[in-house]
Amino acid sequence: MEIGTWEIKETSFLRDKVEQNGSRFLIGNGFMGYRGTLEEFGKKQLVALNMAGLFDKNGDSWRESVNAPNPFYVKTVANGVELNVLTADILDHEQTLNIRHGIHTRKTVFNVNGAKITVKSERFLSMQRENLAALKYTVSTDTDITLSVDTYLDTDIWNIHGDHFTVKSQKDNFLELETIERKLPIFVYQHISGLESGSAKTVKAGEDVSFTKLCGIYWGEKTVNSDKDFSANSELSFDTLISEHKAVWEEVWDNCDVKIGGDDEAQFAMRYSLYHLNSIVPRNTDKCSIPARGLSGQVYKGAAFWDTEMFMMPFFSFTAPNLCKNLAAYRINTIAGAKRKAKEFGYEGAFYAWESHETGDDACTLFNVNDIFTGRPLRTYFKDCQIHVSADVVYGLWEYCVVSGDYSLLLSGGLEMMYECLYFFYSYSVYKPLKNRFELHNTVGPDEYHERVNNNAFTNRMVRYVADAFESALKYVKENSSKYYDEFCKTHDISFAENFKERLYVPGPNQDKIIEQFDGYYKLEDTTLETLRNREIKKNEYWGAHGLASTTRILKQADVVMLLNVFRSEYEQSVKKANWEFYEPYTEHGSSLSACAYGIVAAGIGKQDWAYKYFMKTATVDLTGDTKQYLGDMYIGGTHPAANGGSWNTAVFGFGGVSYNNGVLDISPSLPKHWNKLEFKLIWQGIRLNIVIEDNKVKITSAQPTDNIKVTVNKKEYKF
Amino acid sequence: MEIGTWEIKETSFLRDKVEQNGSRFLIGNGFMGYRGTLEEFGKKQLVALNMAGLFDKNGDSWRESVNAPNPFYVKTVANGVELNVLTADILDHEQTLNIRHGIHTRKTVFNVNGAKITVKSERFLSMQRENLAALKYTVSTDTDITLSVDTYLDTDIWNIHGDHFTVKSQKDNFLELETIERKLPIFVYQHISGLESGSAKTVKAGEDVSFTKLCGIYWGEKTVNSDKDFSANSELSFDTLISEHKAVWEEVWDNCDVKIGGDDEAQFAMRYSLYHLNSIVPRNTDKCSIPARGLSGQVYKGAAFWDTEMFMMPFFSFTAPNLCKNLAAYRINTIAGAKRKAKEFGYEGAFYAWESHETGDDACTLFNVNDIFTGRPLRTYFKDCQIHVSADVVYGLWEYCVVSGDYSLLLSGGLEMMYECLYFFYSYSVYKPLKNRFELHNTVGPDEYHERVNNNAFTNRMVRYVADAFESALKYVKENSSKYYDEFCKTHDISFAENFKERLYVPGPNQDKIIEQFDGYYKLEDTTLETLRNREIKKNEYWGAHGLASTTRILKQADVVMLLNVFRSEYEQSVKKANWEFYEPYTEHGSSLSACAYGIVAAGIGKQDWAYKYFMKTATVDLTGDTKQYLGDMYIGGTHPAANGGSWNTAVFGFGGVSYNNGVLDISPSLPKHWNKLEFKLIWQGIRLNIVIEDNKVKITSAQPTDNIKVTVNKKEYKF
Repeated sequence: MEIGTWEIKETSFLRDKVEQNGSRFLIGNGFMGYRGTLEEFGKKQLVALNMAGLFDKNGDSWRESVNAPNPFYVKTVANGVELNVLTADILDHEQTLNIRHGIHTRKTVFNVNGAKITVKSERFLSMQRENLAALKYTVSTDTDITLSVDTYLDTDIWNIHGDHFTVKSQKDNFLELETIERKLPIFVYQHISGLESGSAKTVKAGEDVSFTKLCGIYWGEKTVNSDKDFSANSELSFDTLISEHKAVWEEVWDNCDVKIGGDDEAQFAMRYSLYHLNSIVPRNTDKCSIPARGLSGQVYKGAAFWDTEMFMMPFFSFTAPNLCKNLAAYRINTIAGAKRKAKEFGYEGAFYAWESHETGDDACTLFNVNDIFTGRPLRTYFKDCQIHVSADVVYGLWEYCVVSGDYSLLLSGGLEMMYECLYFFYSYSVYKPLKNRFELHNTVGPDEYHERVNNNAFTNRMVRYVADAFESALKYVKENSSKYYDEFCKTHDISFAENFKERLYVPGPNQDKIIEQFDGYYKLEDTTLETLRNREIKKNEYWGAHGLASTTRILKQADVVMLLNVFRSEYEQSVKKANWEFYEPYTEHGSSLSACAYGIVAAGIGKQDWAYKYFMKTATVDLTGDTKQYLGDMYIGGTHPAANGGSWNTAVFGFGGVSYNNGVLDISPSLPKHWNKLEFKLIWQGIRLNIVIEDNKVKITSAQPTDNIKVTVNKKEYKF
Repeated sequence: MEIGTWEIKETSFLRDKVEQNGSRFLIGNGFMGYRGTLEEFGKKQLVALNMAGLFDKNGDSWRESVNAPNPFYVKTVANGVELNVLTADILDHEQTLNIRHGIHTRKTVFNVNGAKITVKSERFLSMQRENLAALKYTVSTDTDITLSVDTYLDTDIWNIHGDHFTVKSQKDNFLELETIERKLPIFVYQHISGLESGSAKTVKAGEDVSFTKLCGIYWGEKTVNSDKDFSANSELSFDTLISEHKAVWEEVWDNCDVKIGGDDEAQFAMRYSLYHLNSIVPRNTDKCSIPARGLSGQVYKGAAFWDTEMFMMPFFSFTAPNLCKNLAAYRINTIAGAKRKAKEFGYEGAFYAWESHETGDDACTLFNVNDIFTGRPLRTYFKDCQIHVSADVVYGLWEYCVVSGDYSLLLSGGLEMMYECLYFFYSYSVYKPLKNRFELHNTVGPDEYHERVNNNAFTNRMVRYVADAFESALKYVKENSSKYYDEFCKTHDISFAENFKERLYVPGPNQDKIIEQFDGYYKLEDTTLETLRNREIKKNEYWGAHGLASTTRILKQADVVMLLNVFRSEYEQSVKKANWEFYEPYTEHGSSLSACAYGIVAAGIGKQDWAYKYFMKTATVDLTGDTKQYLGDMYIGGTHPAANGGSWNTAVFGFGGVSYNNGVLDISPSLPKHWNKLEFKLIWQGIRLNIVIEDNKVKITSAQPTDNIKVTVNKKEYKF
């Protein structure tokens, strides 16, 4: 694969990269994502138009996101030979993704008994009109040929857990579908210009056959009047549509681009990460969030995880507060599901889903991985014990408020959500009278290889955060909206909060400055990753549950180091260093969430080489595709938005040294040695800042008045 | 196998029954047990002289009881052919165990090229002199033969987890050994009369070659002056020794025999059970208890389990209070180990061992079963979560006090032990403020197929028992030993006890009268034993840990039904009936502890047929040998003292309907239909009673004055 300034290009067709390239060359507009497959592909090649926020369940199978019919399917036959890279003779092949503008192109030269026939296509999902998918397709030849080109809305599509719609009616250019479970309507339109689909005709040497195809995809309430909307859209030319689409992308980059001087590889990986984030973030709704595999398919059920709040929202809060607000609001909107979950497990308050769908109910099952030795479902504790999610969603909301300075969500359910999460933790906690403290037992931290642990340091600290944030939020509301405050206090018993906060146990550093990941971690077998790999009997063994890592110190991903990352300002350098060095050798990085936490902390403690290594690991995860493809016998391929967000976090919080405390933004950079420049944008308290770090200097500029914000550089006051 | 009035007999030699018969034909005297193997057998046939209370650990292997050298090994060669049932031609064979007197005999007729040669032996472990093992061995022939007979102390013995002694010195009739781990001395003597060992000689047709062999086995402090002790013993004749041995057994039966009229099969099974209990109970020490597999070998590490307190001590408390007192004292003596265990796991007080050795330290490992699919050790929670053991030992002590009327142990550590156990539970418990109650989380109840459960009904109720018993014991001491009481209160903070007792959650019956085995049990898969067996992929799969039963309602053994059994007087008939019927179909009876609990409860709720079925299952467990022989890949064969005790419990508490409350002994019998008589002995508050149940009448007699005891029949006052 070749990497340009703003594009990736595959210059030959490699059959065994079809799955990976489907994710690598993904395009998306937040409403839908289309995998980087070729027009002639079908479900075996994992073609998918994955829909954000639309879910369905077929029978007893797992509930997952819905893939719409394939709008871009084209079958081209020349002299009786199908022009299909999988079967035909290829002379030349290029597949390109332009990440500046989210445009996918392909060009393939086929040899059909001596005739050189070239197929070109260009496609995008409109950033301006989220229901619109557009394709331009051209066939040219150096020899006279008989050609038939057929394109339609292909309903024979990839699904992991069964079909998700039935066809209610079908016309030439229109499909009316209905989801299986909730009977939601899906309407799909097509408008083809320049093609008599299906009929064979003669094409002379040097001539082109070219057509454009616009498709409209609508579901739920949006189907109402969708015919008119699509008609209006399809009157516009492909060129007009692509222009306005590019203009949106230009604006996106203007708000978020990160420029790295002296390292083209890092530069591209950085932008590639931001491309993905911006392709998949919902732009016009607060009814869904970003799935853990973006819009690259149905892996992990198309559900949103804590990944959004802890790894992606920092980027959006600083570069696109309006989108960030939607993401925060999504959790407020789904509190009913979180309350149902708490109740189901015998708790009070709001227990947010490990795998969240549109209602906030948890899509996760109690048996989420299969045992590779027996084929039996394994009882896992992601769903019932990974309680930190309820803290993570509070973190997402409250950090949005703090960074943006916009606290309005508090009054539209935000304060309520914070309360319900805190109350959930209170009901989950246990009080140990002999220790006079509350503890959190039977939890799963980020390191999922150790289930049902007590006093996971990350989890306990995050719960303390919720208590702190609720206190601050309450204070804010009291000072700014006393009427709401009074009403809230009347209807909510907040008397438990202070006692719970004061007596909640948060594991601290021991005499060697190490924070124990959870009670009893030190007692686990002290072994190495190498040893564990050698113990493997089968490929893709799951190391969690009762697997190989569960009884050892080997961890899946940053856990204590994640704690040090989230609470960067709280721990001394020596504590960070001691823990980073203690835990790093034990860490498998079996999750794409891991490396960036190690990278950010490394950058802050003078380990620039390590930080760079982890930054690149994070930023290239979807470029190289070198990630776990299977967990047990479950396919888990796709894109990694958390790592994409983690790249930005590592660059900006790690190398850029951005932090904030008590309303002050600080920039204390420490770049990798070979970077001669780092430039990025931040919106702090509504003020857009451009930050340039170069020659050990920090230059901050803004087109807006900066009188009301406080910024420091290396903890010293910055004067604009 | 044939069953006589007081004996079992094997009338042919069956190679595949060698292991089972080793347990079936076991003899023992509490100090040691000798497996029912033949004189010519070696370690492959699992020959063992298993020592009570002597343990050793070889390297990293499991710690287990020590097998002494084999005192009864005899090698006999006639005309060059070894007279060994495994290799020689057998014309006739008999192996007999007399359970009235604990005497093992064998008789085998060999054919050596036409010569009929008969080997007879008779052996016992002296009940009068616990260090003494005695053998009489005779060879006779119908043809002139050349015969050599060799006997020695065979050190090439069966060990599950490595050798357990080294030979320090060896003389003709004396072996000085030393254990590996703690360097304890073991002395073994032999004294042979009537044999020139080793040398071949001619034996005429019709002549006998006969010898007797006495062996003395001593270990630890008992080795001091053991030469004199053995010399004195070996001056006595075999006949004298066997007479005094029999006399002890006669006394034993006089104190404990249970007579069943109209059911010879049940009669024998009952006595066979009592034979085993009396063979293995320590008679002269309070430094060890009864291992879970008696003295039949090293299975389960030779350790004592809760089996002793909950299944065996009731029998001893009513028939041999002095021995029962020793068993109770053993736990007091091992409190230091229990305190170490509590500390190791981060708790206060005394956490009694799941597998208790001589120090009270837990021989159980955190990986106590191997995964049959991977061969890897499985993390099990017997050791760290089966907290009910600390309640069971209190139960054993306190019930002994109540039944015997002897409270003296309270002042010699008993009250202290009860306190430390209660304090342990307090430190283990968690307080849930929103429910205003203490709960017990992360426990394993008797049903080990469900690990790490919250609020196991049996466990929680047993802990409440500890709180009640401690309160009663404290009251007793206050009233009877005020000085001790004052001192105790000065040195022990008992202020927590009342609050803990009042607020401890004990799950009760729901509206359908069902007591949930633990939080969330109802939510588990509702399936059948049949279904689970059909799901098995491999033989001897372990259903616990993450195995087949763990996510279903299928249970290993009585759990709620055990609760109903222990607290028989507390629950209404309708509750007992509802729970018995609810849980019975789910119960695998994968433990020999299960059936008797079902039997006792069944007898109390009018299910006599079921009760009888379960009684017979329990009472015949070591007769049929139809028990699980493997758990995963671990051999678990041997005798089942808990079931032996359970047989008595079912007969006396179940059919005899014996219960006691507030100092009143009640007898409310309900015999199986075909039993025309049930007669048994009880010592109640020091008064020996003979109870005959016949023709719907209860006749109680005593040779002692009965003025100070209160007895009722069917809850109505009984006048002697």
